[in-house]
Amino acid sequence: MSKKNAFYAQSGGVTAVINASACGVIETARQHGDQIGNVYAGRNGIIGALTEQLVDTSQESAEDIAALKHTPSGGFGSCRFKLKGLEESKREYERLIEIFKAHDIGYFFYNGGGDSADTCYKVSQLSEKLGFPVQAIHVPKTVDNDLPITDNCPGFGSVAKYIAVSTLEASFDVRSMAATSTKIFVIEVMGRHAGWIAAAGGLVEDNGIPVVILFPEVEFDQEKFLAKVKTKVDEFGYCTIVVSEGCHWPDGKFLAEQGTRDAFGHAQLGGAAPVVANMVKDALGLKFHWAVADYLQRAARHLASASDVEQAYALGKAAVEKALEGKNSIMPTVVRESSSPYKWSIGEAPLSEVANVEKMMPMAFITEDGFGITEGCKEYLYPLIQGEDYPPYNANGMPQYVTLKNILVLKKLAEFEVK
Amino acid sequence: MSKKNAFYAQSGGVTAVINASACGVIETARQHGDQIGNVYAGRNGIIGALTEQLVDTSQESAEDIAALKHTPSGGFGSCRFKLKGLEESKREYERLIEIFKAHDIGYFFYNGGGDSADTCYKVSQLSEKLGFPVQAIHVPKTVDNDLPITDNCPGFGSVAKYIAVSTLEASFDVRSMAATSTKIFVIEVMGRHAGWIAAAGGLVEDNGIPVVILFPEVEFDQEKFLAKVKTKVDEFGYCTIVVSEGCHWPDGKFLAEQGTRDAFGHAQLGGAAPVVANMVKDALGLKFHWAVADYLQRAARHLASASDVEQAYALGKAAVEKALEGKNSIMPTVVRESSSPYKWSIGEAPLSEVANVEKMMPMAFITEDGFGITEGCKEYLYPLIQGEDYPPYNANGMPQYVTLKNILVLKKLAEFEVK
Repeated sequence: MSKKNAFYAQSGGVTAVINASACGVIETARQHGDQIGNVYAGRNGIIGALTEQLVDTSQESAEDIAALKHTPSGGFGSCRFKLKGLEESKREYERLIEIFKAHDIGYFFYNGGGDSADTCYKVSQLSEKLGFPVQAIHVPKTVDNDLPITDNCPGFGSVAKYIAVSTLEASFDVRSMAATSTKIFVIEVMGRHAGWIAAAGGLVEDNGIPVVILFPEVEFDQEKFLAKVKTKVDEFGYCTIVVSEGCHWPDGKFLAEQGTRDAFGHAQLGGAAPVVANMVKDALGLKFHWAVADYLQRAARHLASASDVEQAYALGKAAVEKALEGKNSIMPTVVRESSSPYKWSIGEAPLSEVANVEKMMPMAFITEDGFGITEGCKEYLYPLIQGEDYPPYNANGMPQYVTLKNILVLKKLAEFEVK
Repeated sequence: MSKKNAFYAQSGGVTAVINASACGVIETARQHGDQIGNVYAGRNGIIGALTEQLVDTSQESAEDIAALKHTPSGGFGSCRFKLKGLEESKREYERLIEIFKAHDIGYFFYNGGGDSADTCYKVSQLSEKLGFPVQAIHVPKTVDNDLPITDNCPGFGSVAKYIAVSTLEASFDVRSMAATSTKIFVIEVMGRHAGWIAAAGGLVEDNGIPVVILFPEVEFDQEKFLAKVKTKVDEFGYCTIVVSEGCHWPDGKFLAEQGTRDAFGHAQLGGAAPVVANMVKDALGLKFHWAVADYLQRAARHLASASDVEQAYALGKAAVEKALEGKNSIMPTVVRESSSPYKWSIGEAPLSEVANVEKMMPMAFITEDGFGITEGCKEYLYPLIQGEDYPPYNANGMPQYVTLKNILVLKKLAEFEVK
């Protein structure tokens, strides 16, 4: 096998640990310098490949690459850009081949979620369909935890830990205030289609916290919800509510789309949390506080799960190793061997079975009344938030996250307009 | 001096470290068992004293009291209830004296902010004005950092660290996405009157992040604000905005009160963050994300500042030591000896000079354009967020926060109705 360069790119919404996968890819490639030349990273994802904006990772020090392991976000930049089918996006795939040829790229590592697994699958077919030899390996990443076959997705465990811990802390707060003040705390979490992140908020129940969860999987029933909250407040004196951004009415309309308009008549893009909080106030007259975690949750490297960081790195490493074994069109996966004690290993899935398949949360993970999580769900979740992996801090008390130099290689081709 | 019991209560909004002060008070009192009998804690603050709901802290193990040091929220419960002047609230002060007599209480430790400093000051006058001997010492606590004389208030340093770190992490996130997606991230922070917490978000500038801060101290000027954001986005490709909940228009109306109404015509109690985000979208057409940290920020013990925890404990300890020295009507304070290296000691302030005085942020800490913090402000803030003081975690990956038994002592008096 002749020595080829590798291309690596980050795709879609970033996470607290996607850079740990980048670190796994680059460090492993560097260890196999006899078989892999340089790793070129796409500046802002696949857009960087199309526009020939390739980061020369050999210009980054070993120390800075190592620091990616504890740095949140996408160190090379990410993008929201989906390639369509080989016929429909032929112009783009042909451009990719030109780029691969010009820079002698034989390995394509794509780090992302469902959409990028599909793109990666198509790139893996270039060899057969457009006659260009490239090995394409997908490195899983998504806070939504919705990729199939793999037990879980890197990025999810850290969000889950952040939401579980933050919900616990805020619940302790409202418990302290409930006698004379705030009795309801609402936290809104990510998850437009799947309630995995919301489920993590449910773990606080094991700390004696009364919690009501609003999942995207369960059609919102205002009457049942208010009755549930009232029962909890009557018993405990307060209640925590975790609402998924994807929570919706039976007609499919999101709770966040309440038809609110501001003083200028513009549609108000509020969150689900204030809607739910005001609903409880109007019906039960209870004082509330609400929070919307948004990016804070998926960027919270300061509270990353150690098992998540370890897996993110291991999957990046495995992607390179499997490429060197000659594999193409696969995604390394996490295989759960046992939950208690937590044991896992690396497996692999064919991209044909990953692309365009969304893994939903099993309904067996949601309690019968639709507002809580089951013991089975907790058994699934706890291992994923196990362990703490703190970043280093400087003397001022700030985390030492790395900003890469991101020096681009010289362009060899004509400009290309991304449409 | 005959051996007397002590009363301790938590007041107002709780913090990540108010329990560390409780720990300092109780552990120090236990070390002086020859001079102080039991420590009775008010169940839900001063309300617990009035209703004779006194927690018998001697029933809590040394281990659980020690665990208060790493547990956020108010372990005994807090309340929002302000005693008025000695004449106006005579009924309540007389009740307090009855309680003190019935339970042989000679020390009153009150852990709170400005309002409770005032209450504590009035209790300290009971000796002289109503003929009952009690020593009243105030233990400072407030995330708002608005108590006078003391260099800073326990609780603030940890919120500041949480906001600085979270703003940095989310800014790295938006920087990763900005090429094709989100270009504006807005985070709303606490601080109705003072911009101390918002200022902490400004520390990310030292990490190369373009940030615009909206302080309550600076009247909101929409045109100047939008121009500032546009300049940042033009230069960096993205921008982070930190908005204080207290940010307001020249007429005093909060940004959060935009006169928005929901589908049912109810006034919509939204946050300032979505208002600012939509404003930028409408004017500049930029995609945004926004977060409202709310309770998450003041409860975030998982990311407490080590100097904050240390000071919270030290001030609780000093309160007891000063009481044993025979002092009354004072508040132990933090005295800054030097910023770099950070050195501090414990001082004291007379409550007459603390009560009803609000310390504002110096205008010299805000840049001339009103949207940033000065080097002097950074020099003030960094020491307060120095060091990490992590709580212990269990095998499941959750922090081991303590829930006290909170066993009440037997009542000796008739019922009392709190009005």
